[in-house]
Amino acid sequence: MSAIPNSFMERAIQLSLENVRSGRGGPFGAVIVQGNEIAGSGVNSVTGTNDPTAHAEVMAIREACQRLATFQLSGCQMYTTCEPCPMCLGAIYWSRLDCVFYGSTREDAAEAGFDDAFIYDELCRSRAGRTVRMEPLMREQTLEAFREWKRSGLKIPY
Amino acid sequence: MSAIPNSFMERAIQLSLENVRSGRGGPFGAVIVQGNEIAGSGVNSVTGTNDPTAHAEVMAIREACQRLATFQLSGCQMYTTCEPCPMCLGAIYWSRLDCVFYGSTREDAAEAGFDDAFIYDELCRSRAGRTVRMEPLMREQTLEAFREWKRSGLKIPY
Repeated sequence: MSAIPNSFMERAIQLSLENVRSGRGGPFGAVIVQGNEIAGSGVNSVTGTNDPTAHAEVMAIREACQRLATFQLSGCQMYTTCEPCPMCLGAIYWSRLDCVFYGSTREDAAEAGFDDAFIYDELCRSRAGRTVRMEPLMREQTLEAFREWKRSGLKIPY
Repeated sequence: MSAIPNSFMERAIQLSLENVRSGRGGPFGAVIVQGNEIAGSGVNSVTGTNDPTAHAEVMAIREACQRLATFQLSGCQMYTTCEPCPMCLGAIYWSRLDCVFYGSTREDAAEAGFDDAFIYDELCRSRAGRTVRMEPLMREQTLEAFREWKRSGLKIPY
């Protein structure tokens, strides 16, 4: 493997360490690369910004999409200091990234007090078996938006 | 069941329909309720804002957290027009919501052209079996941020 992937991971590690040392957020950093350039980066900003979705990977995706003026990152790679949690992995699929290089694992995150492994287990359960209660309600009425979407001439698929 | 849950879902449905009719985004709406008040709401804003993470549920969580000045929504409920995708369900766990009322299902979403069901399948696979390539890199070096986090006096756990 060339030195380049390591240098991108080194940048993500530097971000994660700065984030812990400053007290701004959790011990996570991520960068997104297009070609050999960093297109976006992020650190965990949950507590600093009152945004539970502000994980390093989500922040990096948001920044790269703003910079590249797109909602899809096909052809880009992510370097993240820890295996993405289910929220972030979902965001990686929606953003169409090609590849994820990750440092530590969900088990390492769990050992440091984070719920990543627990949430993976929960997501793979049936709705009825989860700790968060999930209740169906008014399905027929909610389907109208899908019907209108299918025949809309204004829609931008994603 | 009282009329109140239905009125909150009706608001989410109204938001989803307005979003399709305006061409601003996908056919999804969500509201977050604390007590009997709407604390935040959101519509799918992926294409309109170039943010692949801007699903209705994520937008509603972000808005409720800003309004309530917190990064945790314990004691709140979500009403969403469609079963949350894995990214949004992950965000629901991280935000500590109590309960999710959902209208249509991941299968309904798939039938309308959205990848929710596919991403659930992918997340529950081993890393090696996924369509997005996942490569371990520099684990030992990334663990230093966890070690510093554990002994940090500045950290705010979440």
